[in-house]
Amino acid sequence: MAFELTIDHLPDLSLGAALLGTGGGGDPHAGRLLAAQAIRTNGNITVLDLDDLADDDFVVPTAMIGAPSVLVERIPAGNEPVDALRALERLLGRTATATMPIESGGINSMIPLFVAGTVGLPVVDGDGMGRAFPELQMETFGIYGCPGSPLAIADERGYSGIVDTGQDNKKMEKYARALATSMGGVGYVAEYPMSGADVKRTAIPRTLSLALRLGRTLREAREQHRDPVEALSETLSETLYESSGVVFEGKVIDVLRKTDGGFTKGSAKLVSFDGGSTCQIDFQNEFLLARVDDRPAIVVPDLITVLHAETGEPITAERLRYGHRVRVFAIGTPEIMRTPEALDTFGPRAFGIDLDFVPFEQLAASKIGSSV
Amino acid sequence: MAFELTIDHLPDLSLGAALLGTGGGGDPHAGRLLAAQAIRTNGNITVLDLDDLADDDFVVPTAMIGAPSVLVERIPAGNEPVDALRALERLLGRTATATMPIESGGINSMIPLFVAGTVGLPVVDGDGMGRAFPELQMETFGIYGCPGSPLAIADERGYSGIVDTGQDNKKMEKYARALATSMGGVGYVAEYPMSGADVKRTAIPRTLSLALRLGRTLREAREQHRDPVEALSETLSETLYESSGVVFEGKVIDVLRKTDGGFTKGSAKLVSFDGGSTCQIDFQNEFLLARVDDRPAIVVPDLITVLHAETGEPITAERLRYGHRVRVFAIGTPEIMRTPEALDTFGPRAFGIDLDFVPFEQLAASKIGSSV
Repeated sequence: MAFELTIDHLPDLSLGAALLGTGGGGDPHAGRLLAAQAIRTNGNITVLDLDDLADDDFVVPTAMIGAPSVLVERIPAGNEPVDALRALERLLGRTATATMPIESGGINSMIPLFVAGTVGLPVVDGDGMGRAFPELQMETFGIYGCPGSPLAIADERGYSGIVDTGQDNKKMEKYARALATSMGGVGYVAEYPMSGADVKRTAIPRTLSLALRLGRTLREAREQHRDPVEALSETLSETLYESSGVVFEGKVIDVLRKTDGGFTKGSAKLVSFDGGSTCQIDFQNEFLLARVDDRPAIVVPDLITVLHAETGEPITAERLRYGHRVRVFAIGTPEIMRTPEALDTFGPRAFGIDLDFVPFEQLAASKIGSSV
Repeated sequence: MAFELTIDHLPDLSLGAALLGTGGGGDPHAGRLLAAQAIRTNGNITVLDLDDLADDDFVVPTAMIGAPSVLVERIPAGNEPVDALRALERLLGRTATATMPIESGGINSMIPLFVAGTVGLPVVDGDGMGRAFPELQMETFGIYGCPGSPLAIADERGYSGIVDTGQDNKKMEKYARALATSMGGVGYVAEYPMSGADVKRTAIPRTLSLALRLGRTLREAREQHRDPVEALSETLSETLYESSGVVFEGKVIDVLRKTDGGFTKGSAKLVSFDGGSTCQIDFQNEFLLARVDDRPAIVVPDLITVLHAETGEPITAERLRYGHRVRVFAIGTPEIMRTPEALDTFGPRAFGIDLDFVPFEQLAASKIGSSV
């Protein structure tokens, strides 16, 4: 069901987006400021459920691409994602009837809100990643047959580029990434233009309201001095992300981190509070693999979140430090993200991890089984 | 006056294009093969004089961009520049009535012939560089008010990109170069879409037939055992490039060459046959500055050509080697390339050379004056 998103929703949404960012996703702060400005100027934003879309609606997702660390130092001039939308509309000779996120988590939960607020469009409650991923081809839109091309990209001067690689979304990512890099590290894109029918068929539903609910859950748990993880699990059980659970508790003893090819890559080592157990988390912008005592415990695309042990505040790969006391919390992805074609695109092997995907619930069950 | 370009013209054109490549421009060989194939399949190509254009003609220049050294190893699939032309036509909703070169020299003298022959368009006898230059903004088209945007770029799979940077042709170059690099080092572009009236106002006329004449002159001089440089000067005196002359004769004693940011950069040192005089030639793909006894003798955009001492064969910066016996031959550029606005774009300071442009004829005259 459609609802009105107000400026008061933004703090919860931002917190929930950080959680779904699963260690990456980019700082939602700059995007949140832009979204707030748009709402202050033009009023609340209508959020449409997938069921509210007409089959012949024309939906154009909008997003930021590039190094989130650059964005911190390069404030958007403000119109870039709108410029990208307009460039794509001109090319296709059609006007969007809605925008939506391509990913849930971090700054890209906010950019479509800024666009929607600025140009007076509704935003669709769903996305194509169901979490944060580092590359533009990692989209259920594309996995289920909707090409990302043509993609429009805009810089802070209103200059634009178009990339058209037909059905090849991986090549689209490559060319768009090259343009974003030449634009100074950050570009704003409009891509995966789709009919309402296509969105209903390919999107992961209700991920914007999911981020909102998760953020609200964390805030209220804190206010009510309730265990944040218990509260999160309760909220998640009512959604498509129904399975969740803590796989490890302990403190961070080492973090290796390097910047490589525009990504933040590395791993974190943790030890349990009693010293009897270890955990290693590998990341490429986002957390990709958590091993407990050298056995896989959470594997991408399942969500690996690292939460502050007491407050439940999500900690990003970038901020993770020696001495942090954390809980490693798994969130199982919906079935639409666990199909063979989905795993081809954003399963462990797509990140060079030589493992088959196994849902974290099964990994947890087999661990219990083996310890009996 | 229009003329028919046949397959028999290509060897002379290729030789003349190497000369106008002024040390760079890329090997015309692959382009020549493509042009020959198109003529063999579809017949001769009509070459239009600027005067033959109607004001409302729609002219779309076509070219290759990227590292010429990559091209040697990556044979074009054949349709890339046509794909770029078609992508730009689709974007603009207009069909080109002619194509033309953006530069004279090297492979880009050939690419428009391939396009013209393949799609059955005439090619315009003129270009926007009047020689070879390394970057896309170095065009009289842009200098005299015609933007290069929108630019279409295509790769060997038919994938395309569009770059639109409004009036900012330097930024267009930057973004298009990033795409060409991500395409594997080479891309094919259609850019500077112009009316016939704009072409007549901004192009350097008759540079395609100039290349043809210079190539023929060199060939005939060889056949007639005539001094090639004398023959070239005689031919040039009848064109817009009326001034020319040898500024140095000697042998190459050292060449420093490195690949830097996609360019071949370096310098060559020469000593006269009697050992009494030296010459240094700096290059960035193309030869940019020739100094004789530490005094500037030829400064970009005037053409610096290095000719084999006996045969007059042009030698590129890439092929220049210790022991080569050469003549350094200057060709003065037409007035349209020596205006203050032209020098802002492709004069010495545009290449980081801290010198004012002085026509080589004046430099030669002042040297004679001072030696009296």
